[in-house]
Formats: sequence, structure tokens, C-alpha cells
Amino acid sequence: MIRVGIVGATGYVGEELVRILMQHPESHIINLTSQSYVGKSFSQIYHNFEGICNTICEEEDIEKLSEEADVIFLALPHGIASKKVNASILKKAKVIDLGADFRLKNANVYEQWYNTEHFSPELLKEAVYGLCEIKRDQIQKSNLIANPGCYTTCTILSLYPLLKENVIDEDSIIVDAKSGVSGAGRALSLDIHYIECTESIKAYKIASHRHTPEIEQELGEACKKDITISFTPHLIPMNRGILATCYGKLKKKVTWDEIMNIYKKYYEKEQFIRLMNKGVYPETRWVKGSNYCDIGFSVDERTGRIIVIGAIDNLVKGAAGQAVQNMNILFGLKENTGLNQIPMFP
Amino acid sequence: MIRVGIVGATGYVGEELVRILMQHPESHIINLTSQSYVGKSFSQIYHNFEGICNTICEEEDIEKLSEEADVIFLALPHGIASKKVNASILKKAKVIDLGADFRLKNANVYEQWYNTEHFSPELLKEAVYGLCEIKRDQIQKSNLIANPGCYTTCTILSLYPLLKENVIDEDSIIVDAKSGVSGAGRALSLDIHYIECTESIKAYKIASHRHTPEIEQELGEACKKDITISFTPHLIPMNRGILATCYGKLKKKVTWDEIMNIYKKYYEKEQFIRLMNKGVYPETRWVKGSNYCDIGFSVDERTGRIIVIGAIDNLVKGAAGQAVQNMNILFGLKENTGLNQIPMFP
Amino acid sequence: MIRVGIVGATGYVGEELVRILMQHPESHIINLTSQSYVGKSFSQIYHNFEGICNTICEEEDIEKLSEEADVIFLALPHGIASKKVNASILKKAKVIDLGADFRLKNANVYEQWYNTEHFSPELLKEAVYGLCEIKRDQIQKSNLIANPGCYTTCTILSLYPLLKENVIDEDSIIVDAKSGVSGAGRALSLDIHYIECTESIKAYKIASHRHTPEIEQELGEACKKDITISFTPHLIPMNRGILATCYGKLKKKVTWDEIMNIYKKYYEKEQFIRLMNKGVYPETRWVKGSNYCDIGFSVDERTGRIIVIGAIDNLVKGAAGQAVQNMNILFGLKENTGLNQIPMFP
Amino acid sequence: MIRVGIVGATGYVGEELVRILMQHPESHIINLTSQSYVGKSFSQIYHNFEGICNTICEEEDIEKLSEEADVIFLALPHGIASKKVNASILKKAKVIDLGADFRLKNANVYEQWYNTEHFSPELLKEAVYGLCEIKRDQIQKSNLIANPGCYTTCTILSLYPLLKENVIDEDSIIVDAKSGVSGAGRALSLDIHYIECTESIKAYKIASHRHTPEIEQELGEACKKDITISFTPHLIPMNRGILATCYGKLKKKVTWDEIMNIYKKYYEKEQFIRLMNKGVYPETRWVKGSNYCDIGFSVDERTGRIIVIGAIDNLVKGAAGQAVQNMNILFGLKENTGLNQIPMFP
Repeated sequence: MIRVGIVGATGYVGEELVRILMQHPESHIINLTSQSYVGKSFSQIYHNFEGICNTICEEEDIEKLSEEADVIFLALPHGIASKKVNASILKKAKVIDLGADFRLKNANVYEQWYNTEHFSPELLKEAVYGLCEIKRDQIQKSNLIANPGCYTTCTILSLYPLLKENVIDEDSIIVDAKSGVSGAGRALSLDIHYIECTESIKAYKIASHRHTPEIEQELGEACKKDITISFTPHLIPMNRGILATCYGKLKKKVTWDEIMNIYKKYYEKEQFIRLMNKGVYPETRWVKGSNYCDIGFSVDERTGRIIVIGAIDNLVKGAAGQAVQNMNILFGLKENTGLNQIPMFP
Repeated sequence: MIRVGIVGATGYVGEELVRILMQHPESHIINLTSQSYVGKSFSQIYHNFEGICNTICEEEDIEKLSEEADVIFLALPHGIASKKVNASILKKAKVIDLGADFRLKNANVYEQWYNTEHFSPELLKEAVYGLCEIKRDQIQKSNLIANPGCYTTCTILSLYPLLKENVIDEDSIIVDAKSGVSGAGRALSLDIHYIECTESIKAYKIASHRHTPEIEQELGEACKKDITISFTPHLIPMNRGILATCYGKLKKKVTWDEIMNIYKKYYEKEQFIRLMNKGVYPETRWVKGSNYCDIGFSVDERTGRIIVIGAIDNLVKGAAGQAVQNMNILFGLKENTGLNQIPMFP
Repeated sequence: MIRVGIVGATGYVGEELVRILMQHPESHIINLTSQSYVGKSFSQIYHNFEGICNTICEEEDIEKLSEEADVIFLALPHGIASKKVNASILKKAKVIDLGADFRLKNANVYEQWYNTEHFSPELLKEAVYGLCEIKRDQIQKSNLIANPGCYTTCTILSLYPLLKENVIDEDSIIVDAKSGVSGAGRALSLDIHYIECTESIKAYKIASHRHTPEIEQELGEACKKDITISFTPHLIPMNRGILATCYGKLKKKVTWDEIMNIYKKYYEKEQFIRLMNKGVYPETRWVKGSNYCDIGFSVDERTGRIIVIGAIDNLVKGAAGQAVQNMNILFGLKENTGLNQIPMFP
Repeated sequence: MIRVGIVGATGYVGEELVRILMQHPESHIINLTSQSYVGKSFSQIYHNFEGICNTICEEEDIEKLSEEADVIFLALPHGIASKKVNASILKKAKVIDLGADFRLKNANVYEQWYNTEHFSPELLKEAVYGLCEIKRDQIQKSNLIANPGCYTTCTILSLYPLLKENVIDEDSIIVDAKSGVSGAGRALSLDIHYIECTESIKAYKIASHRHTPEIEQELGEACKKDITISFTPHLIPMNRGILATCYGKLKKKVTWDEIMNIYKKYYEKEQFIRLMNKGVYPETRWVKGSNYCDIGFSVDERTGRIIVIGAIDNLVKGAAGQAVQNMNILFGLKENTGLNQIPMFP
């Protein structure tokens, strides 16, 4: 059994981690910490866990935890993990950080987009960007995994083969993404007060969302160029799910089948990526509660563009599920251990 | 492995059955039938099953199926099962009927409320009402299980101990119930067209809903009297969930603790019933995707009434989950086999 | 033109007041005050008012306002109005209080249910309970109107004729009410955080909601008895609307038509009450954005009960609309002036 | 009073027309026709109209209607209006067609995108594209108005000044649009069955939606070039509203203020277009129930793109409201007559 600690267990991502890990046959949660609910039982905070998880939330103490746990999941607001994690901890336990602190290779880029100091830039070269389907080999050997953002996972998986195979113009990429409200977290804010976001749609953080440099970093690595993309997130009145509608200019005329072959080259054996048949497109309802990333696309001859659509559950493949997938890789388990939940519809 | 056939697999209840049974360690689905989608693969109808269940839906042939299957689940509109099921089938396979045809012991009551002939009244005495927590012993010995309705399950479990223990006036019972839209099924109807039911609430089938006699039959059996209740269902703009708010006049002054002891007497060892602490009340979000029935109550001294609130997921404990629980009982498995999913929130 | 001041303009009720009054041909808003947004323009707080109302929100000063305004609307949390209003203000301006402070005739009952001191009990006998259809004559002569609560309006209008005409057992009344989320106001709270209340239903403040004594007071006055009722509010994932499902034991056998005649006796000439035909029941979508109260009922011979269903828009007939209706009465205008909006569906 | 007939009054657009026109001081509805509900009163079909509009829906007879009405609104599926309208009718009454039949100047383009014959191509040169803010002068002189589509109105108004003023690369335009479900109409379809579209988002008709050629026609006219755009519609789980997120490559470096001046040049005096301040972006909730089109934009220096966001209520400015605006222009009324409703939030 893998001994697991979760730091920041009472946000939505933390709660989803608990849900997945409690149903994981090889993991044992030894510690839940919380900033807001120290001393409360987990089931008082999330009543779905009544009779299932009555663990008392403790104050965070990563040092101590690293001595008891095999792996520590961090589900914290950005700027905290880079203060807490250090080389000594990483010697004792593996760390999977679900926040942003170790995702960007360049601390300057981090500081610019996140408007805060990075407290452990020396760890950035050790950290591996935990997009499992693409970085599997590096993940295996690392002790510090930077679990990707939700928008990022969906976008990169959708576009990666096209950039790797030099199919689309690198300067033409536009990603118009849509997220359910759980992506905004559990902290109170007028924006996600029920009345303020139901029955409406809006774009936000236009041309300034912090997942942008992550996408640019990873897709740039795929095509070996520095690239800039347009990324626009939108808030959708639903609980879970991300849909990324991605546009790129095709470098030359290609058929749908040719593009499909490219996707198959990278993803055919991936158990968490499902490629849609011609004319079928992802919808977030079909991945809800699961670790799948569904991808479909259309080749538009009229405009010479490809439109790729990706869908994930933001809390699973976009956060807790992928984190557990990373854990499975780190500990040499079958990658889908504990992640076989069939998407729940309706 | 239990060989399973599902007749009527492409409605929401059928789909939930497939989802649960595919994750059940002891069951193997050998046949899916559908009225509307013969020849289509299940994953074309429900894209969440892409790459998971590509079984082709077949035309229904219960006779033949009974020779190959150990158990047949029927998820059909009322009036069909009583035509299809017969003694010869029941000799070859166990049948769990998720429809209404075998729930009412009295064929006349059935014909009156359902406005249709009952085609096999002779089977009614063989059929066991499959409310697992209450009829466990009889279920074990039966070949024909009448799986209870969704409103019914929630209501009976909420009130059963009070009637059994003679705590409330039998003539005073009012059940004001609320259901998510999936309870109305997948057949198209203006009532459940998105625009017509989102952002609104209504009562329907007031004083005439067909789950009423089921509740009266079972609660009447508990208190050994003929009873009539007021039952009012409401449609709530959400996917899943039933909340039953039940009112009864207390026969004498009692405390919350005394009532809790009564509930504990019946339910303390039940793994799918969760009794809420004082001041905590069920909400449908806390049981979503699970087989739990949550029960909480308030003793109102001012009015001399008890208000009991029950919550279930209508597709799980209210249909497919309870059906699988019945299967587990029928085949001598641990009752929670394949039913351990933690409620998914959000 | 009636000069109007709104104290507490930036809550949902305040905002609805602004919307209605700006479209009212005889009113002129001279002052908007806010606790949270002093110095901000109204359209910055509510962007629907961009280019329509750029009035700057001011700090509240009722004394001063009473010298400039003909009528002051108070849309404040309970406990504040009873501190602010006094005899001198009421000499200078009429006051319509949308809060709870002047609704209960008995200050003790207020203090018991609201758990706070009442600061001006001497005004309670001057205050008129502003349920227009029932208290019209007294409203006309008053300077201090206690605008009823949202649940209350819907419940009292639904049951009033039955109690007035002695049709139902006064001890048998159960009101199971359902409200959209806007009823909970704009102040942040985890309960009405989007994720926490969408896709779910719950009961709350069971046997303890503060609208209970209001209903008992007014229905008790109708039947000239002290009565206690069971009142259970529920939170529904929708923006606007209240549905009250009311149960009462019939004192004798009556027909639907006989009951309808009773309702007609009281409401036939009321322009804001719509009585539904036999077999038709109110739904909140049909009254959205309007000042209507829709009422329908069923006489259930099996149980000897009547089930009455009422629906209103909680922000209009349940708050701002009725407040304007009260203003119209106070100033001798046609009662529907500025209130003719057709319900908006969808 | 303008005598008005509505053909196809019982769809959502028809119903919204009735709602607006009944509150319009200069119009009088003389006839409502319906395909599905002949002989039923309008209030039986839409209960919000109880006591407000009990007009009986008749069978359509445009010929006869044209003799009695001053203006006929057609709210029909495509392919019907071009059969019904002819020169003789247009001599007797003005026609405002809310369908697609007269929007595209080129009958071949129509037949190609709509996959059906055009039955009156000779009327296409008489028809004026009824986008009021842009075609006001031509509308005034016409008898046949082709009221624009919902996506189209929002997109064209958002981009028109940029193309007119040659600011963005004509080949770079991508429109990622999102619509509430009412845009899909009232006809039953599994896609808009509640359960199938709530709690999810999807793109549909990718690279093939029929509003595309309309947008290309009108924006092409603005920049005097043939253009092709990428247009991707999405279905959002909400009732009303369209949000268009539009991307274009800037031809040269410009500031936000310079772009704002361009928008002001075209829209400053438009009462139904609201330009957002820097950093503020449209959200559909702020225009609900109103005829406004809100526009905001960001100039992204990193990518050299402009992102323009437009929002309308699809049933008002995207259909019935704009149709009435066209009527007002046709009959020389103030353009906002009957259209002054303040957006309703929440």
C-alpha cells in the first residue's frame, strides 16, 4: 500500500482526490490537512463522505508528513507549494503538486504571469510536467511532479500531435475554452455565487489567463519553437467539465483520415484518450467523473483550418485523476489503477 | 460470474444498470436489448461508453435469454413485463423487474392506478417487493423481484420505522416529494424539453401519482392497517436525485433521541442507509451516483409533528443500484458488491 | 411624480425595485443608498443598468431622505429598519419596509423568532401588513407598510379564502414551500455558492423558518383563531420563483367547483391573482418577472384533503412588485401602474 | 395603431413577439397562427399569458391576412416563407420574415447551405437584410425585411466597425459562439431534452452552421471583399443568450482607445448597442429580456490579435426584438418604441 498524504484536502480538487484514492486498491490515506477546517472531520465538510471518511483534518506539516508518507499531494493556491517543498522533503517522499508553482520551467515567466515571487526556482529543473501521455518516461524517474492545469491538459492533449507533426501554423493557434464552475474552487466570490453565474455565460481573463504560458511551453516544446497562442476561458453554468475548441491554420491540404492517422500515432494505445469518429465531437457530459480526454476534429476546407475539440472532467483528468495517474506511474502500478470509473451520465 | 441480460438497456435506468454491472466484479453482461436502437452499439447511443461497451443492442427475446442468463433485468414501461414474464422463464432465470407490474399485490389496485390490464396476476404472489432493507429474507428465496419505484424507495425507507413502531398517526401522513428530471425517462416529451423545465418548479400528478399505492401497501403492512397518504411529486431542474419531505402527527410526545433510537433499531447495521445527526438534513447532492439513502428528521414540538427527510439518487438506490443490490442478495454475494461508489460531489 | 428613495438598493430586492420603478410612469427615483457600494454607480454594480441608471450609490441617511422623498423603500436585513424608522420620519414620508421588522404585531413573537431586540415596538400598531389583496383598505390610510415576505405572500394568498370561509381544519395545515436561490440574497455564503446548490435540493430551517409566525398571524386573523402550521422551505436550483404546496384537511366533503367559487369570491376581481382551471397547476416559470400570484388546487376525496398550489416570483410579488403595488395604493394610483409586465418565458 | 399578424406564433420566437407586441403602445395583434395548435387559445399553450392573451390560434392564411394587417411577422422554419410570400402580398402588407429565406442575396448560396430549393429568388433583391443599426436607411423603404439570425446579429454587430475600417485581416476571422437552448426552438429533439443538454457543453455544426454565409455576406459587404470565416456554435445549458467571442488579426499595432473610437464612430448614438469600458466584458445575463447588444474587446499585444465579445438575448435582439425594431423603422416610429425593457437580472 502506498501511504498518501493530502495537503489541502478540503477544496474541490482535494475532495476529488480523497474520493479517488479511497477507491484506489493500492493507496492508503494517512493524513488530510486543511487551512480552513482543522479539527473537523472530513465528512462534516463534505457530507457525501458520511460514514465513509471521518478522518479529522489536521494542520499542514509537510516536513513531518514526508517522513510518514510515500507520496504527498499538494492541492494549494499558487505561491505556497514553492515555499513548502524543498530538497530534503523530496528525498523522503515523492511530491505531486496540483498547483502551478512547478509547471513553468522559467521562473521569470512564472513571476510575470503569477505576479508573485518563486521561492524555489532551483527545484524547477527537477520538476517534471506531469502530463502523463506525453511525459511518462520522465515522470517515472522524478520525485516532484507538476500536475498540469485543467485547461492546459485539455488543450495540450488536443493539439500536441498536430504540432509535433508540423501540421498547423504555430502562429495561428486560438484556443477558446469553456469550464464548469468547480474549476473556480470553493473559496467564496461573487463571481461564482449561484445567482451571478447561473443562466449566463461570460469570457474572463481574456488574453491574460495563467494557463496560457503552460500551454505555450509544452506545445512550443512539441514543435521546437517559441510560440504564442490566444487563449480565452469562459465560465459555463455547469458543475464539471472543460471543453476546448482549438483552431489552427493547416500548413497544407490534408484529409480527415490523414489527421486521424496522426492522432492515432500518438494516442491509439492511450487508455485515457478517446478519439472520436468522423462527425462525432466531444461533449463534457460524456467524460464526467472519469479520467478520459475525448478528442474530435473537423478539417474545414473552406477556410483551411482544423478545428479540434477536446473534453475532460476538470476535477479528474484536469486535476485529481491525472494526479493519481502520475502516482501510478511513479510507483510502477498499472496506469489505470483506481481510475477505471465509467463516466457517469446523466 | 453471474450471466446477466438487460431488457430495455437504452433508457436512463438501463444505462445506469450497464454502468453499475460493468463495474461489478461478479457479473458479466451477455445481452443488451432495446426497443429503439436495435443494431446500434451501446456506445453510439451513450457516448460515455465509447471504448468501454460496444455491445450491439438486440431485439428482445426473453424466452431465449432465460436459457442463457442467470438473471434478467427488465427496465421497461409498465404493462409490458406482465406480458413477457411467465412461470417457464422463472424456472430458468431469476427476474428483477424495475417496472411497476409486480409491485402491487392486488391486481385490481394495479389496474385502477395504471389504467391497464394486468396480464399475469398469478405471478403476484410469487413476486417479492424488492426493498432490500425490509424484505431481505423473502428476496433471497424468490425468483421474481419487483424492484421498487424511486419515490417509493425514498419514502418507505424514511417512514418505515415510525409506522412499524406505531409512532405516528397513520392517517396523518403527507409526503411532499421532489425529483430530478432523469426520473421522467428518455422518451421525448414537451414537459422535459430543456426550456420547459429548467428554471422552474412544478407539482404534477397531484393526488394521483402511481407510486402512491405502493407506498400505502408497504407502510400499511408495516403498521398492519390500511392506510391512505397524500403524495405530491414535484419536478426539480436537476439531473438526479429524490428528496422526500414526510410529515406525520406524533401519537405522543417524544424526543429526537427517542426517535433516533427507533431508526437505529432498524437501520444501524444497514450499509446503504445513513442516519443524519441532529440538525443535519439530507440533500440530494450528497448521495449522487451512490446507493445510499440518507435520512434526517426534526421533531417539532410546536405542531406535534415529525418531519422526516429522505434523499436518494433516483437512478441508483431508486432503480439500478437497488436492482443490483437485489441481485447480490439473490446470488448470495455481499450486499454491497459493486455498489461501493462514493457519492460524487460536485 | 412620486419622489422615491431606496435604502438598500444593491441587494437583489433593491435592484428589482430600481428596475420596476424606472419603468413606472409615475415614480422618480431621487436616491439610492447602499451599505457595500457607496460611491459606485449603480450600473457598475449591476451591468444590466449600463446606460440606464448611472446614479451613484450614497450612504444611507433616512432622516434627510424623508425630507426629500414622498416614499422610502427599505430593503434591509432584519433588525435595522426598526432602528431607523421613527415617528418624525413617518410624518414626512411614507415608508414601505421590505424587511421583517414591522410584520409581526407582537414584538415578543418577533424577538423570539428573530432572536434580536425590537427597537420600535410602539410603531407596530401603526404598521399595516402590506398584503395588498387582503389589507387594501388599511394600507390606503397608513404611512408605514410592512411588505410581506416572499414565502408568506404565496402561502397566505393560497390559503386565505379557505380559512376565511372555514373550509379546512386549522390544525391540519402543512405548507411545503420551494424557493429559487435569489431569495437568499446577494451576501456571500457557502450555501449559495454555485457548486453547493446547483444540481441539488434540500430543505432548510425545518420547523424554524421566520416566515412561519407571519403566516400564522395572518391566517389566524382570517379564521379568528390562534393557529400553528408546519412550514418547510426548500432551496431549488433556479433563479426566481416560489412554489407553495399547501395541505389542509377538509372539514366536510366539498367539490372542486364549490372551492373554486370560494376562491372567486375573494379573488375574481384581483388583477394579480390568477386562478387556474381544473387540472391546471401553477409553475414558477409562468409568473417569472411578473407580479402575478397563480393559484390552483385539487380536492382529494381519497384522503379528505385539499392540496393548494401557489406560485409567485419571489422578487416581484414576493418583494419589489408588491412593494410598488403598495406604493400605488398609498398614492391613489391604479394598482397595476408600472406592474403590467407580462411574465417572461423562457 | 399598426395592425399586426403573426404567422408561427407558438414557437419561442413567436411567443416572444406576442409578449413584446402586446406591450407595444402602437401595435395591435389581429391574428395569431400556428401549425401545431390551431383552435387552442394562446394562454393554453403558454400559461404565462393566462388572463392576458386568450386569442385562439388560427390556421395560417397569409393572403387573407395581408388584406387585414399592416405588417405580417413570419416566424417559420426555413423553406416555408419563400413559398408563401409573393409580390401581391407585399403590395398589401409589409412582411418581416424572422426565418432565413430572404437573408442571403444569392439563391445558390441559400440552396447550398440550406439544402433546399428557394421558391422566390425574384424577391431577393427587394428584401432588405434587417440589421437595423447597419441597414436602417434601406429598411425604411422596403416592404420585405429579412430579420437576421441570432448568431448573425451578435457577430456582425461585434465585428462590423473593424471590417468597415479595415482594421483586421479579413482572412483571420474566427467566431466562437455560444447559445442558450431556446435558440434551438420548441420542436422536440433528443439534443435538447433536459437531461441531454443540462450540465454539459458541446460544439455543433462545426464548420457547417447556416448562419456562416450570412455573416460572410454582411461582413464582406462591409470590407468590400469576399471573405470566409470560421464559425463554431456551442450549446450552453441556459435559457436565453448568445455570446460571440470573435478573433481577428490586427493589420497594424493599435491601442484600445483607437479601437474604441472606431466603435464609437458607428455605435455611439445607437440606443441598443452598449460599448463596455476597458476591462469590462459582456455577459449574457446583463442583456436578458432586452434588445441590447453589448460589445467589449481586448487588444492583445502578445499575439497581435483583437478579441471582441458581443452578447445579446437571442430571442430579443436576436429575433423578436429586432423584428419589432424593424417594424418601428418601417412605420416611422421611434426606434425604441415598445423596446425599452430593462434587462432582467437575475
